[in-house]
Amino acid sequence: MSLLTVGSVAFDAIETPFGKTDKIIGGAGTYIALSSSFFMKEQRIVAVVGDDFPQEMIDTLVSRGVNTDGLQIKKGEKTFFWSGKYHNDMNSRDTLVTELNVLEHFDPIIPENYQDTEYLMLGNLSPQVQRSVIERLEKRPKLVAMDTMNFWMEIALDELKKTMSMVDVLIINDEEARQLSKEYSLVKAAKVIRAMGPKILIIKKGEHGALLFHGDKVFFAPALPLEEVFDPTGAGDTFAGGFMGYIAATDDYSFDNMKRAIIAGSALASFCVEKFGTDRLTEISKKELEDRIDQFISLTAFEMVVPA
Amino acid sequence: MSLLTVGSVAFDAIETPFGKTDKIIGGAGTYIALSSSFFMKEQRIVAVVGDDFPQEMIDTLVSRGVNTDGLQIKKGEKTFFWSGKYHNDMNSRDTLVTELNVLEHFDPIIPENYQDTEYLMLGNLSPQVQRSVIERLEKRPKLVAMDTMNFWMEIALDELKKTMSMVDVLIINDEEARQLSKEYSLVKAAKVIRAMGPKILIIKKGEHGALLFHGDKVFFAPALPLEEVFDPTGAGDTFAGGFMGYIAATDDYSFDNMKRAIIAGSALASFCVEKFGTDRLTEISKKELEDRIDQFISLTAFEMVVPA
Repeated sequence: MSLLTVGSVAFDAIETPFGKTDKIIGGAGTYIALSSSFFMKEQRIVAVVGDDFPQEMIDTLVSRGVNTDGLQIKKGEKTFFWSGKYHNDMNSRDTLVTELNVLEHFDPIIPENYQDTEYLMLGNLSPQVQRSVIERLEKRPKLVAMDTMNFWMEIALDELKKTMSMVDVLIINDEEARQLSKEYSLVKAAKVIRAMGPKILIIKKGEHGALLFHGDKVFFAPALPLEEVFDPTGAGDTFAGGFMGYIAATDDYSFDNMKRAIIAGSALASFCVEKFGTDRLTEISKKELEDRIDQFISLTAFEMVVPA
Repeated sequence: MSLLTVGSVAFDAIETPFGKTDKIIGGAGTYIALSSSFFMKEQRIVAVVGDDFPQEMIDTLVSRGVNTDGLQIKKGEKTFFWSGKYHNDMNSRDTLVTELNVLEHFDPIIPENYQDTEYLMLGNLSPQVQRSVIERLEKRPKLVAMDTMNFWMEIALDELKKTMSMVDVLIINDEEARQLSKEYSLVKAAKVIRAMGPKILIIKKGEHGALLFHGDKVFFAPALPLEEVFDPTGAGDTFAGGFMGYIAATDDYSFDNMKRAIIAGSALASFCVEKFGTDRLTEISKKELEDRIDQFISLTAFEMVVPA
């Protein structure tokens, strides 16, 4: 199977109550590709960086099976940079700096050898860029998933709706679902959003888990109760990457398999928050991942007996 | 098996974005007893009302198997009255009126025929009153569970801690757990709170489900994603009542059975919020309850396969 990720590959500088980083590697595309690599041994990425981006990280992606033919390196330009500071509760953050740099004029060119892509994951980017990727693929992938954020709802809602109407799966958080639908109840929000296009909706609720709306069925995946969230940056992208990597690797997008994929994504996301940036993600062993998935299983498993 | 509930039997007046009630029947003890009656065909209650309390409701309790020998009816006095108004998000509310009335000098007298109580559920009341019930039972019940609220943490923390040190199970919500422990992380909060006495802790998270901490194990129960919460009043007490009723009916307080009991309590609570006050609770059929429990099962059930 073939999986293509489109998303930012970037520098982040992060401040949490536990510490502060200099410029470290970040970006939705990075987290998605690293995360999906736990299931997909071969995949592709369309992204753009400046020539200040370390070859080391590109090598890491390649070593994890990511074909980087679609990673544009702009000579004399600078990589996208984001800096943010998390509040004490870790549920909200302030953006300190956003330097678009190479992302400002990002033209997502699809290499010829990517044209047979069967699974497409559109990380958070402008809806116009996301849409042009769908349009440039000569054959529509089997499944197209997209992430987005409140920013695009505020400044490019019509463009966002156009792109949403072309995808199968939308992955957003609860706050974004409420903003997009103008409904507080997530069940009502899901109805409104799915009427905009995506047949399948995943609402991420951070420490409260995630909801999958699929046909007339709902699945509720827990989040692992954690003693400490060290740095939430990239957790949502890691979730999406694990989800889409699992779907693509198993080539099965039935409801039952999407449940498994959400657990896989949740397990990877629970690692992501344990260290700054991608630090934890790049060191997880197969055994650790399996143990973590087992923790998710025992967290919600029960056998019901209703007394007479 | 024998279950004793201690808790307020009261009048409430409720305002939600969907409507407004006059004085209707409420009180933690009422919700707990009604809810546990789905599993316990015989139970007891210790509570106090004024002579303004309708005999009708007492008859309803009796018809559901509640022995009311411990329900004191104070001549010439008035029943506890609470009035509150929910905000639009239904997650917060303002108390408009609290008239303690008969609760002010409530002396929880235990009828002789209650002395063999095996399961004790202490609904939210002053920690002194809760403690005196434990002390007045000549033989300690097999399992003692208690609810409490932030109010007692603020005005009677030492008394609360004394009572907590005598119980097996504490059932509180996430906000209360954070306030009591001074920890934001619920995993850390659970450690702090369990060091205060209760070996077993249940943290209710409203629309986000509930967490059970038991030994070194954790269980996460979902809440049913609802289109509408009509009136959240009593949902927490209904949860506790369903939980304790299930435990007492099955006479099993193992971790595995507590998981089932939490699902039972969650299912009943999901009905409670569908109408004002106890309206929905008193009309649920056995079939409806079983169907609702099935919904909870399918909501979180998955079979995991980790790709090679």
